[in-house]
Amino acid sequence: MWLYLAVLVGLYYLLRWYQERQVVSHLQDKFVFITGCDSGFGNLLARQLDLRGLRVLAACLTEQGAEQLRNQTSDRLETVILDVTKTESITAATEWVKERVGNRGLWGLVNNAGVFHPHGYTEWLKIEAYMDTLKVNLIGLIEVTLSMLPLVRRAQGRIVNVSSILGRIAFFGGVYSSTKYGVEAFSDILRRELQHFGVKISIIEPGYFRTGMSDLQKSSEAAKQVWKEVPVHIKESYGQKFFDTCAPGIRGSPSTNGREIGTRKS
Amino acid sequence: MWLYLAVLVGLYYLLRWYQERQVVSHLQDKFVFITGCDSGFGNLLARQLDLRGLRVLAACLTEQGAEQLRNQTSDRLETVILDVTKTESITAATEWVKERVGNRGLWGLVNNAGVFHPHGYTEWLKIEAYMDTLKVNLIGLIEVTLSMLPLVRRAQGRIVNVSSILGRIAFFGGVYSSTKYGVEAFSDILRRELQHFGVKISIIEPGYFRTGMSDLQKSSEAAKQVWKEVPVHIKESYGQKFFDTCAPGIRGSPSTNGREIGTRKS
Repeated sequence: MWLYLAVLVGLYYLLRWYQERQVVSHLQDKFVFITGCDSGFGNLLARQLDLRGLRVLAACLTEQGAEQLRNQTSDRLETVILDVTKTESITAATEWVKERVGNRGLWGLVNNAGVFHPHGYTEWLKIEAYMDTLKVNLIGLIEVTLSMLPLVRRAQGRIVNVSSILGRIAFFGGVYSSTKYGVEAFSDILRRELQHFGVKISIIEPGYFRTGMSDLQKSSEAAKQVWKEVPVHIKESYGQKFFDTCAPGIRGSPSTNGREIGTRKS
Repeated sequence: MWLYLAVLVGLYYLLRWYQERQVVSHLQDKFVFITGCDSGFGNLLARQLDLRGLRVLAACLTEQGAEQLRNQTSDRLETVILDVTKTESITAATEWVKERVGNRGLWGLVNNAGVFHPHGYTEWLKIEAYMDTLKVNLIGLIEVTLSMLPLVRRAQGRIVNVSSILGRIAFFGGVYSSTKYGVEAFSDILRRELQHFGVKISIIEPGYFRTGMSDLQKSSEAAKQVWKEVPVHIKESYGQKFFDTCAPGIRGSPSTNGREIGTRKS
């Protein structure tokens, strides 16, 4: 009986060992489109995949970010300017990708572009601030996905959506968590719908990493700016003392220490 | 030892019995503002709270819905027209509520207005369809909450956000689940931020109930309309046969049976 068990366990580890030895081949034929490559994870991923020989198509929000990235990478890597909040920008980027991948299709799409701003309690923020975050993190991600899907399907490719630990636990005033919760739901539905086409959908839920988003100096400044614009009746409810001791991004308060906050990645 | 245990268990049930006997008093002084009272849950809640003697302020999307509701209820219940996707409509409704509640504040806010449309797989829908749902279910809910919060705080009141079982598990193409996931995150953050002010935030996650949202006839029609407008290259990927056998709302498929789908509540 123990012998059978040992054989089974052995077979299991043999299978695991075999599976983990599998690597993707012909990297030089594989195109990956990444959004938000100006800085942070997008920038790091673009550089790393370029080093490994993949054909990286890097979307940046600014020409400055694109130029910096091109200077640090091989000639294989190409950049395009993309604002995920603008339909015409997404359409143009899709055409640009289509020209490059042709009949091979798009092997990988990484929806990384995201913003975290501004900084403050739910009640301190204007609805416009909510909309700005929603437009990039959720609506932009959906629109880029819908636009690129035919190319991904052609290659039986994969989509990686960058969510956040804040897509799993709700934290910070405003709508950042809501957008990331939304990304998780969207990705899960898409995963089931597209598995029959051989297209895989994954999410990544980063915790606290040192990217532009986690710059305490910047977030503290942003929080002060938000507080300055809060209507008087709300300011009086919370009080200046509350802001000085507890506000997000101020004095490394419990609300921000070791968690993800910051500025626009792309 | 067993005696101590029996006493402890007895005390626990005594406490439970006492807690469950607590009822809210002075209902006739308490104002509750409910969105989406044209039909469904909002309509039922408005009528029930009116019957119990509360001061119901019912927001409807249409004058027709408002009139029907007034005809079925006491003179205490008042109605206002509210489109939660329009800032000016929310501002006007807030002023209207303020005039009525005065210094007492708003004892309850029920964010019930929601839509589920249109019907189809993620890839079949246009970004405009995503936006329509987002604007009501998530952005509208946030904007109404922010607008009414000062009144709720004055009464040390409570906010009840109507989420869905689809705010807990992701299902159906489109963005309905994403909006409800977003509502859960938003509510959880707000709950922690406002507990120090004595304001309570709750969510409700209904499953499948027979409201306007769960009308199979309507959702089947809507799905056919969506399919009609799907671009040819996507139609070819899925195929007519797939639509006939599996599409949401068609022939009571597994995607829709016993789950929540339908048309705009408000």
